[in-house]
Amino acid sequence: MKSWCLTASEALTQIRSGNLTVETYAMSLLDRIRQRNDAVQAWVYLDAGSVIKQARELDKVPLDKRGPLHGVPIAIKDVIYTNGKTTTTEFAAIHIGTKTRNPHNPARTPGGSSSGSGAAVADFQVPLALGTQTGGSTIRPASFNGIFGFKPTWNAISREGQKVYAVILDTLGLYARCVDDLILLADVFDLEDDDDDDDGNTFHGIQGARFAICKTSVWDHAGKGTQSAMDRAATLLKAHGADVELLDLGAEFANMDEWFRVVLHSEGRTAFLSEYRVGKDQIHDVLVSQVKNVDQFSRKTQLAASDGIAALRPRMDEIAGRYTAIITPSVPDEAPVGLTSTGSHVLCSMWTALHNPVLNIPGFQGANGMPIGLSLVAPRYRDRHLLKVGKAVGEIFEAEGGWKRQPC
Amino acid sequence: MKSWCLTASEALTQIRSGNLTVETYAMSLLDRIRQRNDAVQAWVYLDAGSVIKQARELDKVPLDKRGPLHGVPIAIKDVIYTNGKTTTTEFAAIHIGTKTRNPHNPARTPGGSSSGSGAAVADFQVPLALGTQTGGSTIRPASFNGIFGFKPTWNAISREGQKVYAVILDTLGLYARCVDDLILLADVFDLEDDDDDDDGNTFHGIQGARFAICKTSVWDHAGKGTQSAMDRAATLLKAHGADVELLDLGAEFANMDEWFRVVLHSEGRTAFLSEYRVGKDQIHDVLVSQVKNVDQFSRKTQLAASDGIAALRPRMDEIAGRYTAIITPSVPDEAPVGLTSTGSHVLCSMWTALHNPVLNIPGFQGANGMPIGLSLVAPRYRDRHLLKVGKAVGEIFEAEGGWKRQPC
Repeated sequence: MKSWCLTASEALTQIRSGNLTVETYAMSLLDRIRQRNDAVQAWVYLDAGSVIKQARELDKVPLDKRGPLHGVPIAIKDVIYTNGKTTTTEFAAIHIGTKTRNPHNPARTPGGSSSGSGAAVADFQVPLALGTQTGGSTIRPASFNGIFGFKPTWNAISREGQKVYAVILDTLGLYARCVDDLILLADVFDLEDDDDDDDGNTFHGIQGARFAICKTSVWDHAGKGTQSAMDRAATLLKAHGADVELLDLGAEFANMDEWFRVVLHSEGRTAFLSEYRVGKDQIHDVLVSQVKNVDQFSRKTQLAASDGIAALRPRMDEIAGRYTAIITPSVPDEAPVGLTSTGSHVLCSMWTALHNPVLNIPGFQGANGMPIGLSLVAPRYRDRHLLKVGKAVGEIFEAEGGWKRQPC
Repeated sequence: MKSWCLTASEALTQIRSGNLTVETYAMSLLDRIRQRNDAVQAWVYLDAGSVIKQARELDKVPLDKRGPLHGVPIAIKDVIYTNGKTTTTEFAAIHIGTKTRNPHNPARTPGGSSSGSGAAVADFQVPLALGTQTGGSTIRPASFNGIFGFKPTWNAISREGQKVYAVILDTLGLYARCVDDLILLADVFDLEDDDDDDDGNTFHGIQGARFAICKTSVWDHAGKGTQSAMDRAATLLKAHGADVELLDLGAEFANMDEWFRVVLHSEGRTAFLSEYRVGKDQIHDVLVSQVKNVDQFSRKTQLAASDGIAALRPRMDEIAGRYTAIITPSVPDEAPVGLTSTGSHVLCSMWTALHNPVLNIPGFQGANGMPIGLSLVAPRYRDRHLLKVGKAVGEIFEAEGGWKRQPC
């Protein structure tokens, strides 16, 4: 097998055992990128020479001096302050597509705003990537590209170094092709739940687990692909011995969609003021309209929205805590045709605002054979729990959901 | 009068009218810094040559191409990504003093963590400065140095470019020697309240205004200097025709002090993980202990604290909205002797956590003749209102409070 096919966990094992040098691994991934770059165009900056140079240096480091991710390249979305970047939309704040194409069909969007990170992982150009999510910018590309995308609890990982859009929403997102690889990142970022045993809610496998199917108040945005994925998910989990029930959030959460919009635009008003002051002709109209508060949201409206959301966070923890996980749509449907729009965050935004950890599980497919994922949701700071559940659920969805990743 | 004596508003008027060049103004401030730097040591980085070069360039800009602060230097605290920096404590997160001395008495601290910004403005080395506040880091130095310090509503100004400590607390802070100068910054940062007339709560002067004296649950930390400043403030405002009443927040807010500590340390756990990973031997034990969660705060404790505070934010808006402003201590007492400790944030932290705008008004003095200020507090997004009230209150406190700024 070519080493670019490896997951991060597999590559680490081979590098540690001496079967693979960091340089060989890096060269293999760079070969893959060279073969595929015209078709996918996931990168805005990549210095192959520097990558190889660094890889050679890493090979010289003695085994006992190596960090936990030694030799594993990670693609970084171009709203995070570093070199070696994948594409994003303008300040990760608009839905107008980048040059990046969906690796499963170049006529379709890879989603956004973490467009390049999602596409690069799906296309085996890199095993891990970082994205960000303010509305649905991690989960949507994960679903469109058929990979695992993890939005941890808000503020469980520092947002230092990310361009600010909405501080109360912005969350670092993690991409991989398997849950074990996400766990590598969860270790490095020190994600930690309370001890499960304290509440007797340790996950013991799908048999006997309890899942909620939550269609939310924006279910009318779900197309046929997502509708049938939700049905299939329930059927599969039941067949594997889980309890599956419908969860109706009712009137209490009915304002979430509008409140999210109020908070997002109010934060944009603050966040993009400096760009507006320095060069309002160089930023997109969407950002200008937020700075100018064309919505004419009053401060009272803004505070009612942010306080309303804040009050629902502990309520959602309580509700989600009754289940092993909540299952809810990631996207309206498979990735749409065209690169102009990166798609809609409507089905993700409530969970972003509520700060819950969300994990996109791939495995289903739409009418055109494109991947569709579903979101698993847990209470805040149940990140490790969610990854454990996601691993077990992922094995079922990937095996029996209907969509098959291209063999490597 | 030397031009380093000018307020920003005065300097702008002179520059606009052609009576003062930017270069002359800059040279005068640099002279002041040279005279006073050994005594005060407010700066970590200052390139006088570059300042003069920029000043000359600014003088060449035609009048109709000039921005609103054209030619006015602003000192920047060394946790904000730019050049030309004033001192701060380590990541603005610890209370161990910098080299900076209180300009009114070099044996005493200027406070922290915005140590250099507070001292530089008080010492006429610069008319305006930016600080930050996570606990009391803007208001405390304002009180200790006898200047106006303004912590706007949380997130009313973008926190882009500030080192992250606690995203839910971190706030950019503004320093000046008069309220008119703070209004210049409020204009540039586009602070905007709802229209006062909508609620009929336009401020019409001290006569007939209604002030609350709020001693909070941590009043036992207030020393004699602050106690007598609070008494004197009430007496003065009554003498000028205001209603002044005591506000007892009671049991509802009694957990704020502990909740603040939980949130602060929990955020530090996330914020300083990267520094810990890269060089734990190079960061202070206080930061290491937060990353290691030596408090052993569970996620449940952390969420109860952050949700508890979030629920009290609209409650405090409602309470504060009954008054023209709340008057509350800024600090325990005048600046303590020694540079080891920058003092305590205990009397500020509740308001930081509640996101209210807070304005330190100088004018009182302690047993040793050092300045003491008091805080005015308003509901969230009543920043402009607070500045208006603060200007009127400031005129009274500065004239009759007992402390006199050194004549220029």
